[in-house]
This record gives sequence, structure tokens and C-alpha cells, in this order.
Amino acid sequence: MDKSVKNIAILGSTGSIGRQTLQVVRNLHSRFRVVGLAAGQNMELLSEQISEFKPKYIYYQNQKSRFQIPNSNFLPMEEIAGLPEVDTVVIATSGKAGLSATIAAVRAGKNVAIANKEPLVMAGEIITGEAKRRGANILPIDSEHSAIWQCLRGEKQPPSRIILTASGGPFLGYSESQLARVTANQALKHPSWKMGKKVTIDSATLMNKGLEIIEAHWLFGVPIDNISVIIHPQSIIHSIVEFADGSLKAQLSYPDMRLPIQYALTQPERVPNPELPQLDWNKTRVMTFGPPDLKAFPCLELAISAARKGGTYPTVLCAADEVAVDLFMKKEIKFTDIARLVKQALKNHKPITHPTLEDITETDERTRKLTLKLARKKK
Amino acid sequence: MDKSVKNIAILGSTGSIGRQTLQVVRNLHSRFRVVGLAAGQNMELLSEQISEFKPKYIYYQNQKSRFQIPNSNFLPMEEIAGLPEVDTVVIATSGKAGLSATIAAVRAGKNVAIANKEPLVMAGEIITGEAKRRGANILPIDSEHSAIWQCLRGEKQPPSRIILTASGGPFLGYSESQLARVTANQALKHPSWKMGKKVTIDSATLMNKGLEIIEAHWLFGVPIDNISVIIHPQSIIHSIVEFADGSLKAQLSYPDMRLPIQYALTQPERVPNPELPQLDWNKTRVMTFGPPDLKAFPCLELAISAARKGGTYPTVLCAADEVAVDLFMKKEIKFTDIARLVKQALKNHKPITHPTLEDITETDERTRKLTLKLARKKK
Repeated sequence: MDKSVKNIAILGSTGSIGRQTLQVVRNLHSRFRVVGLAAGQNMELLSEQISEFKPKYIYYQNQKSRFQIPNSNFLPMEEIAGLPEVDTVVIATSGKAGLSATIAAVRAGKNVAIANKEPLVMAGEIITGEAKRRGANILPIDSEHSAIWQCLRGEKQPPSRIILTASGGPFLGYSESQLARVTANQALKHPSWKMGKKVTIDSATLMNKGLEIIEAHWLFGVPIDNISVIIHPQSIIHSIVEFADGSLKAQLSYPDMRLPIQYALTQPERVPNPELPQLDWNKTRVMTFGPPDLKAFPCLELAISAARKGGTYPTVLCAADEVAVDLFMKKEIKFTDIARLVKQALKNHKPITHPTLEDITETDERTRKLTLKLARKKK
Repeated sequence: MDKSVKNIAILGSTGSIGRQTLQVVRNLHSRFRVVGLAAGQNMELLSEQISEFKPKYIYYQNQKSRFQIPNSNFLPMEEIAGLPEVDTVVIATSGKAGLSATIAAVRAGKNVAIANKEPLVMAGEIITGEAKRRGANILPIDSEHSAIWQCLRGEKQPPSRIILTASGGPFLGYSESQLARVTANQALKHPSWKMGKKVTIDSATLMNKGLEIIEAHWLFGVPIDNISVIIHPQSIIHSIVEFADGSLKAQLSYPDMRLPIQYALTQPERVPNPELPQLDWNKTRVMTFGPPDLKAFPCLELAISAARKGGTYPTVLCAADEVAVDLFMKKEIKFTDIARLVKQALKNHKPITHPTLEDITETDERTRKLTLKLARKKK
């Protein structure tokens, strides 16, 4: 067995990041062997993936179709994440789903490539603390955090400021009253990124950027108040880092998740990826930057406020948002109700500082119930 | 004597880069001791600098005023550059003037902070070869090359492409016929950078950007054809580097030479510089990029062509340009004559491949005479 081949487990393999991770792995088949795949409900795609990549271990949430797959062992996600033969775990799940597998991977000292931001937002203190103790490497896949990570390569001092760029989403420039009327179908049409549904809606409310502030805080040890957001609709600059001497570095590319996915898997090496288009400066003539509209998109300030308070507040933020986004996609609430419900959930919360994983799980469950109740009350 | 204090010699101390280097050193007086200062003609300013920084060694070109300075020894620039007690030599001279001192500093294995690009353009092969053999560190001060150097920090592979940004100078958008009528005073008003006269005129013709291509080639080992130029009039992005995986990194700041000067002196450390303004994203709303106008500004293509041919061609480029710029500033030729004279000098040249320093010096002298002759012929 070639020791230079890395064994990889992909949790959430049928989602947007999971499918793109498999595209990257397909191009780099001499470097990676897929030993584990975990999916939610999409059994058809999972079967195809199993046929192609022949993982030893699989997991799926779909209880209705426990079909038998030869030479594949069914295991819970947390167990796949901690298997001794796994080198790198890709957390490509959505929302809260990846939390326990992330913790299992970190506790097992793996390379943990994280695309799913909620685990870090909810349990950043626990995850980064465990990673330090167990020698796990947390490798950000989120394009903004990959950009920051790339800009910090070789730097010996932490950045003095982080500037997260945001496309602004499909509703950039909309007024509050316009936003009250937008539909889920409109919100799912992101102008620059191809992503999963939850993160696409979060991009439309700017909650996604708020979660990224908290993620950046935990990944790079930068205080919340030194992380800011600028709207950059062209999505060419993926984030910017400022240093003590006033110099700034930015990472650029066309928006394509396959680049940060590949970087997380191959770094420190950079491997040519002929499938990705080279940035054409004849087409990139203008880049614009501006402040976010905090009045029309209150989720961003809700996230910053939850981050400043810390403790279980970010868990409430995530749980309420996940429930609210789900209700919005089911057409049960309006777009503007997402921020309203998150705000009410945060207001109702009795916080716990330095929460344990149990505190986080309980807070999550309680907040989900509360948010559903608050949503029904409205009607 | 504190071993952590670095001894620094500044060659060209009364010029724009020299003065700004002394500003940086003044702010970092606990880290640097000025042991050598060399100037050209400006004796008044040199006297002030000597009073303030009390260098042990001095040099000046001005033959008329050999005034005595107590405790300062008069030495040729080349000797100051090679003194055992000197740690870092700042080459802040203009045009060809810094060539022999640069070579002396490199041969003595110093940290050689280079702002003067002509030595590298004329003798890049010799300077980089000697630096390797003698363990000298070449530290670029030119803002574009500092940007590239900062972006390459921590990267293990050479860049696949370098994109040099150019402000476009004061005549961006001018037609050939408009350019034929511009004056030296107009050319000396650079829209974004405060620099010496020679480099300011070179910025107006885009020759400066051509020289920077050659400089980048030698500093970073990137083939000439993988180095391109884009016009970015806001001068916020100082250059861009592209990697094998298609990811790009850029370095940004307001245009102020004190940042790259300080970085060259303090790196790998980044030291706060409260005198430099922090980039304000509320004022940086738009960045634009576009191709240079090669027809109106033929110097850029002349430089690229000389670089591709190599050998003594870049020396001819520098020598002819330095003479032509001088004639233009003396109002003896038109702005558009600069490119014409450089082109004719290149056309007349019988090249030497892998030239020695003597070949370079002879080519330089011969080209200067030829360019003067060509200029007179016109009249």
C-alpha cells in the first residue's frame, strides 16, 4: 500500500461540498483513497458514489432503504470520523448535523477539513481546544477562511484585522419591504456561488457572513471586534487579512468551491487543477466594495452580538436560524421572519458560559422547539 | 553594544527613498544604527542627516564641497557597502549609479535592500548568482516586488504567473499625439506615488513597468512570458501572484514607500508603523483593472523585447532610457522621443550573451554616447 496515498472520509458526500470534494478526489486519484462516505437521504447518488469510489465504510440517515452493499460496513458517522485508517475527514454536512462527527474527528487527532460552519460556531471553544490537545489539524474549506488561511501562510504574527468579503447575495440593495415579499426560489438563486440550500438562504440573509465571523474568530484567534465585513459583489477577492505594519493580503480566484476544497486536501502543496478556469483580467475590470446594509439584513448584527456575548448564544443563533430557514423554504414564514425569530430566540435565552457539549446539545434542542413555537404563535 | 541592533548603510540617502528610509529608521531607532550614508550632490541635506544620525562612514559625489565632518570617514560607496560592521545595505541610488555598490554589497554577503532597479535589470544574472554564492539576501523595496515577496511568504513552490500592477502614470488614456506635447513638469506629477525624478518619468512612459518585469524575473525566477502588467489606477493592489492551483494572492495598502522600506528592514517581523494610515474601506469603494496601451506607451514592449533577448540588451535599455529621460527633463527632446531613442539604441546594438560586469559597463558607456548622438542627429 502506497504510504503517500491519503485515506479520506467524506461526511455529507451527496451534498454540494461532498460532490465537489469527490470531483477533486477523482482528479487526484493517485493521492487519495476514499475509505468512508456518509450521506443523509439521497440513496441514489450515494449508491453511485459507492460504486465508483468503493469505500470500506458507509453511513446513511435514510432508514427506509437499508440496502446491502458488498464489502462496505455500515457505521455511524462519528465512528467513521475516528477510524485509525482515516487520515483526513471532510466535514461536508449541513447545519448542526456535523457537530458530533467533527468532535469525534478532532478527538481522534485527524486532519479535519471543515466546510460545515455551524459546528465551529456552536462549539468553537471545545473543538479548537480539543484540536490543540489531540494534535488535530483544522483545515478550513469555507472560501473566506481558506483565503485567510492562505494569506497567513508563512506569517509569524497573528493578523491585526480580518476583512471578510461578502457577495451580498441575491437581494443586495433590496429594501426591508421588498425583502418581506421574496420567495425561497428567489433566495436560492445565488449570484456567484453554487452551494447547498441552507448556506444559500443564509447568504441571502447575511446570516452566513455572521456565522463566518464567529468561525474566523475560532480558527484564527482574532477578536470578534477586529473582524469586519465588506460587500464585494464580484466575489473575486475571497477575504483580506491586515497585519501589524498596515500591509494587507488578499486571496483571489473565480468563485468555485473546488479550489478551497483541493487546497485543504493537498496543502502545503499546490496542485494544478485544469478543470478550474484561470482568472482572466480582461474580464475582471472592476471590483467594488461597500458596507453591508445592517438595517435590511439584521441577521449580521444578531450574529455579531451573539458572538460578543459568547457562551451558548452562538448555539441559539444557529439552532433558531436552522429552524427558521427550514420554515422559510417550506413557505411557512416570510424571509424577514428569519431574523425576527432568531432575534426572539436570542432574547429569550438564559446563557451558559463555557458550555459543555451537553449544554450545547440541550440549548440546541430547546431553541429548536422554542423557535417552532414562536413561529406558530405568529400565525 | 546591543547585538539585536542592526547596522545599516544607506546609499543615496538624500534621494526620495533615502529620505523615507531615514524616516523609517528614525521610528525604529532602537533597532537600527546608521553607520554609513552616501549621497550625490545635495550637501545641505547630507549635512543635516550626518548631524542627526552620526554615521561613521560617509560618501558624497559633490567634488566642490569636501567639508570636514568630525568622526566620519570618507569612503567610496563600494567600500561602505562591503564594510564588515554593516549588516544591511539600502541601495537607494537612482539609475545606473547603484550598480557597483550593489555588486560590492552582494559579494560581501550582506542583506541588500534594493530600491534602485537598474542594477538588477542590467546585471541580474551576475547579482543573483553572486548572492547565491556569497549567501547575500536580496530584499526588494520596490512596492511591486515587495508585494510579490510578501505574497510568496511561506509558499513552497514558485508562482506560475506574476501580475504587476501599474497606476498608468499621469498620462493614462493619452493618445500618441497628446503625448508628443507633454512637458517634464506634467510628467513629474505622479497621481499616486511620491518618488524620485527618474522613476517618475519612467512611470509616465511605462518604462518603469518594463524594468520591473525584468527585476521580477531575476528576483523570483519567473520566466518573462509569465509576467504580465495590468493598469490599476487606484494603486491599492501592489501586485498579484498566481499559483499552480489557480489561486492568486495580492498585497494591498495605500501607496506609501515607507511600508515596503520598513518591511525589507524588519521582516520576517511586521512592526506597527503609526505614521502610515490604515486602509479605509469606506474610501476604497472601487478598484479597476485594464490592459496597458502598448501603442501609446511603446517603452513597455521595448523592455519586454529586450528582456526576452537578454544578454546586454537590458543594459542598452537602461542606458538609453537614462540618457533620454535626462534630455527630456532638460527640455532637449520630446516625451515621445524617449521611446524612439531607446528603440534606436536597441536596434543598433550588437549583443553579448552572459555578459561580464566589464561587458555591461562598456555597453552602458557606448550606449550613452550613441543615445546622445542619436538625439542630436534628430535636431
